[in-house]
Amino acid sequence: MDKVRAGIYGATGYTGYELATILSRHPQVKMMFATTKTYAGKSLRDIFPAAPDLPLTSPEEVDRGSVDIVFLCLPHAASAATAVTALEAGVKVIDLSADFRFENVAVYEEWYKVKHPAPYLLEEAVYGLTEFARDDLPGARLVANPGCYTTTILLALAPLMMAQAEIAGDIIVDAKSGVSGAGRTPKTNTLFVEVADNFSPYAVGRSHRHLPEMEQVIGWWHDQPPKLIFSPHLLPVPRGILANIYVNSSDTWSESDVRALYTSAYAGEQFVDVLPAGELATLAHVVHTNKCVMSLTFTGKTLIITSALDNLIKGAAGQAVQNMNVVIGLPEETGLF
Amino acid sequence: MDKVRAGIYGATGYTGYELATILSRHPQVKMMFATTKTYAGKSLRDIFPAAPDLPLTSPEEVDRGSVDIVFLCLPHAASAATAVTALEAGVKVIDLSADFRFENVAVYEEWYKVKHPAPYLLEEAVYGLTEFARDDLPGARLVANPGCYTTTILLALAPLMMAQAEIAGDIIVDAKSGVSGAGRTPKTNTLFVEVADNFSPYAVGRSHRHLPEMEQVIGWWHDQPPKLIFSPHLLPVPRGILANIYVNSSDTWSESDVRALYTSAYAGEQFVDVLPAGELATLAHVVHTNKCVMSLTFTGKTLIITSALDNLIKGAAGQAVQNMNVVIGLPEETGLF
Amino acid sequence: MDKVRAGIYGATGYTGYELATILSRHPQVKMMFATTKTYAGKSLRDIFPAAPDLPLTSPEEVDRGSVDIVFLCLPHAASAATAVTALEAGVKVIDLSADFRFENVAVYEEWYKVKHPAPYLLEEAVYGLTEFARDDLPGARLVANPGCYTTTILLALAPLMMAQAEIAGDIIVDAKSGVSGAGRTPKTNTLFVEVADNFSPYAVGRSHRHLPEMEQVIGWWHDQPPKLIFSPHLLPVPRGILANIYVNSSDTWSESDVRALYTSAYAGEQFVDVLPAGELATLAHVVHTNKCVMSLTFTGKTLIITSALDNLIKGAAGQAVQNMNVVIGLPEETGLF
Amino acid sequence: MDKVRAGIYGATGYTGYELATILSRHPQVKMMFATTKTYAGKSLRDIFPAAPDLPLTSPEEVDRGSVDIVFLCLPHAASAATAVTALEAGVKVIDLSADFRFENVAVYEEWYKVKHPAPYLLEEAVYGLTEFARDDLPGARLVANPGCYTTTILLALAPLMMAQAEIAGDIIVDAKSGVSGAGRTPKTNTLFVEVADNFSPYAVGRSHRHLPEMEQVIGWWHDQPPKLIFSPHLLPVPRGILANIYVNSSDTWSESDVRALYTSAYAGEQFVDVLPAGELATLAHVVHTNKCVMSLTFTGKTLIITSALDNLIKGAAGQAVQNMNVVIGLPEETGLF
Repeated sequence: MDKVRAGIYGATGYTGYELATILSRHPQVKMMFATTKTYAGKSLRDIFPAAPDLPLTSPEEVDRGSVDIVFLCLPHAASAATAVTALEAGVKVIDLSADFRFENVAVYEEWYKVKHPAPYLLEEAVYGLTEFARDDLPGARLVANPGCYTTTILLALAPLMMAQAEIAGDIIVDAKSGVSGAGRTPKTNTLFVEVADNFSPYAVGRSHRHLPEMEQVIGWWHDQPPKLIFSPHLLPVPRGILANIYVNSSDTWSESDVRALYTSAYAGEQFVDVLPAGELATLAHVVHTNKCVMSLTFTGKTLIITSALDNLIKGAAGQAVQNMNVVIGLPEETGLF
Repeated sequence: MDKVRAGIYGATGYTGYELATILSRHPQVKMMFATTKTYAGKSLRDIFPAAPDLPLTSPEEVDRGSVDIVFLCLPHAASAATAVTALEAGVKVIDLSADFRFENVAVYEEWYKVKHPAPYLLEEAVYGLTEFARDDLPGARLVANPGCYTTTILLALAPLMMAQAEIAGDIIVDAKSGVSGAGRTPKTNTLFVEVADNFSPYAVGRSHRHLPEMEQVIGWWHDQPPKLIFSPHLLPVPRGILANIYVNSSDTWSESDVRALYTSAYAGEQFVDVLPAGELATLAHVVHTNKCVMSLTFTGKTLIITSALDNLIKGAAGQAVQNMNVVIGLPEETGLF
Repeated sequence: MDKVRAGIYGATGYTGYELATILSRHPQVKMMFATTKTYAGKSLRDIFPAAPDLPLTSPEEVDRGSVDIVFLCLPHAASAATAVTALEAGVKVIDLSADFRFENVAVYEEWYKVKHPAPYLLEEAVYGLTEFARDDLPGARLVANPGCYTTTILLALAPLMMAQAEIAGDIIVDAKSGVSGAGRTPKTNTLFVEVADNFSPYAVGRSHRHLPEMEQVIGWWHDQPPKLIFSPHLLPVPRGILANIYVNSSDTWSESDVRALYTSAYAGEQFVDVLPAGELATLAHVVHTNKCVMSLTFTGKTLIITSALDNLIKGAAGQAVQNMNVVIGLPEETGLF
Repeated sequence: MDKVRAGIYGATGYTGYELATILSRHPQVKMMFATTKTYAGKSLRDIFPAAPDLPLTSPEEVDRGSVDIVFLCLPHAASAATAVTALEAGVKVIDLSADFRFENVAVYEEWYKVKHPAPYLLEEAVYGLTEFARDDLPGARLVANPGCYTTTILLALAPLMMAQAEIAGDIIVDAKSGVSGAGRTPKTNTLFVEVADNFSPYAVGRSHRHLPEMEQVIGWWHDQPPKLIFSPHLLPVPRGILANIYVNSSDTWSESDVRALYTSAYAGEQFVDVLPAGELATLAHVVHTNKCVMSLTFTGKTLIITSALDNLIKGAAGQAVQNMNVVIGLPEETGLF
């Protein structure tokens, strides 16, 4: 089989860098280009000293016909515009922005405060939560890679939601993310001195952009979809997300039933682990891996699902490559261990 | 006024060190002794390089009659035994262990897995959540200083509980503590390499020892006391606790009523700040201070109280000194700014 | 005695914030204003959540006549311009920039790449390495506060240099600074993700701006002043500088003579500690204090002086207040413990 | 080719864990056992949540005949004893302790304060600084893996020493190591609270055990071997070593000659990079890789070599696997990218 020729748009953010690293080691991928707005002419290694020695080019100078697939690590709206031209050139697209994650363009436009550049593509786009998208991914032209918090929380809720579990009240999600989730553009609040020795919530309640994304997918799964209360925090670590998800039932949860539900849902999954009773998920389980690891704690009517992943890998670049593998028919784990 | 002569039992843990630092700067205190089991003959500065130059003595060599008040930073059970001998010598006691925090000895013995050495003192002991103990503290012989998580969460819940707010279901508390809360005894799980770049829950649900302490006090305040679900975490910072407290009502909360309740409850308090709408509490608000800072977020039926303090100061040594000030009739803030 | 009325220009950087904190607690100072280019109309507490509640004003709106003394935490060149107008208004100036540190304007202009706005003031300016400036500070109109690396290293070298010790070859200084030394303007290289888990040298050899400043002062002290090789590093901590200084002699150093030299040089100094043999200086000795702590290690012909201080306090704001105290005749330690 | 059957003694320290991770991914290795004194019956994953799922056995229960090669991650002296029995069973040994690093048993016994259990093996043991041991490694029975600081510094000095460069005075080495270098046994000085926000030198001068090891090898290379002054520090990061090495000449160094010397010495090396002029080595270049990266700075008579590696990989487990590959005739990089 010929190698897949791949390009990355936006290679000099943290996600682009992680993606370049994974793709450079991928046995079935040939990297053709990596774009940058700021560093054209340099090597990716000039920006990240342990990166592969990839030449960086301006997006204008890219030969669009040279690749089979592109990964978009661009700001929203910019991403959709690039997707359009790539698709026109017959190139498949895996988009890591929010541009194609919503079926309803109004929801996107309300939360992202921008007119969608290509709403006609929303229907075609496959929402790439890989473990639950395997029917739609093969051969897809356009994949919307889910958000990092979203992946953490949806994987943790999927078995329960799909089983139409009766939920009492809102689901409470207390989530914490490493600082790479905030991007590489210099801002005061992500300076070392501001973050070290600190811990801070932000966008608490119902105001973070990943909230409507999560609720959309829960709506696909559950006939009477519960709402979420979502409290994200900035954690003084470079990478990793850990979320506690509190799900109330009007009755006492059956620990054996729920454990069986989760164990069977993820039996055979290479990238999702459900821990045995007594062990709690931590960042140390997942950092620098493509895994989502979760644990279940039962306290009567409240089920606590603790879910963790590496925001740059399973929450972004790793899942993107996992999606690519399914799209083009490779074993799903290729290049990801 | 003569200076108060004070001693510290157990000065070489993190709390003892913090206490020694505060007391050494306190204008109305004369430090008489600081004990240690391990380092007798050394100076506290040999253990903590920025500490005051206090001689450390074995607890056996202490002249009990030389002091007016002692602070106990000892393991539980050991603390009660020392308290007994101090009280017999006519010395006041501020105990930072759990030994005198419970009115019901059976609860203590169940959670701390030890026979209580002096249950007859439980009734006399004043539970020293200072802001709500001012009636009982003046002149008290024995003060039980509350736990660090407990202080964070009780201060955040007090106005609501005392107002007999109708609560739907359990209150969910997602709390995170800096590593000094785990003490200074070398253990694998508090090594730098284990904690840095990590974030980990522990004792999730209803299994942490501060849970019965919090529920006891809520029971004093509320006629129909709600239960707590409590998820503590180890945070990769040296100090500070931040907790999110999710309180459900069967109706939509009235933001103006609840804000007014909190604002008036803490009006005039020097060590409790309720932040204005739009600002969220963080560790940066409280670290190295004796303050508890909280913010309120409203999302329909769920009220989110975010509460933060420095576990070694307002959560331990600072509150202990605040209690001492009230016990002996000094202005409450003396030595604490 | 009336309180000294003080103002800060540039209060929203790390040094300005530290200075505002110290001055707000200073018993003999009344804070009159704190300026900002960006946040006028806000409180300092809106920028730093644990800061004193100081109103921030635009520098244009300041009533220059309202103060007795101003502290300048401004970029170089901007600082000198503000100093000129303050002095004209009869206000004393303590400048924390590099503008008045050099006696030779050409050296300043070469290293700072800017034309000096007021070279005629260089002669009058007192170089405020407090411990060695007590003859010149009282009553001074204009004080140049030394750089942070500079203070760390000059205090460590002063006794040896003033004793005209015979030095073989260049002095090698391997120095490490916490990230606050790089300022609060958002830059990629000071983002949390770039600094955490990393350690990086910069401006190694003879290219850092504090080099000519150190060599100038060594030239004042030593008849045959040695040159320095200077290797600064970015350390993944918020604050603190530690430097190892390697001084070669053509003969074996006499440990007892050198120890006696240092001990007597700093006997009675409240803010400089020479550690006893066997104890090495660390950041834990100095962080959050106005102290410079040093240790001496002897290995034949090489003397290793390890020197540490808090770059924001003894290396900047604390030393500035120490200088102010001497200038206006207060006990030197006022407000600094 | 059949896979090499390998065992690890001492798999539950940081080095053993890193080695288990590398060997489990190595395409030509079959892991047969991993020993532990404390956790027999558990999986390595129970100790390190992201580790391979390797069963841990007591060293007494190991079938010595089941393997071709063993890696020893044991304390000194214990290591040599295990090596003896392994060699007797016809098993090759790669020892990561200090036991076989010294040609002179008296030096070992003086520095390690223990009688050597098998001095007769010292002559046979190959000192495994891979890049300079390729003549002796193939087929060797016993390899002494160099120390972590030692590897960092010897790779940086090798070209200069082998070229018999004339050195003036002692070489000064200012080195900083991540905390994993201090091992996983709980000790106060490696607790998170002690290390975070701190930076501390230790064993400064001529007292660290890697000093005689470095000087031994320099003695092999240089006819007039210079002495070292060595200042190690504990750096608040989990992993990585960076050292500045100051080498004086009586004359000005020729930058072009020295650059050419280094470039040609390491041309073609996969695991040693000499950076171009203007770029300085940092931990970010090397962490999580098997690389040693160095940069050269010229300042007249002083050459500054900055050298960095990951103490657990190139400084320990990675170099051990590199050595194994050469011993058994595999491409040197197998399993190391």
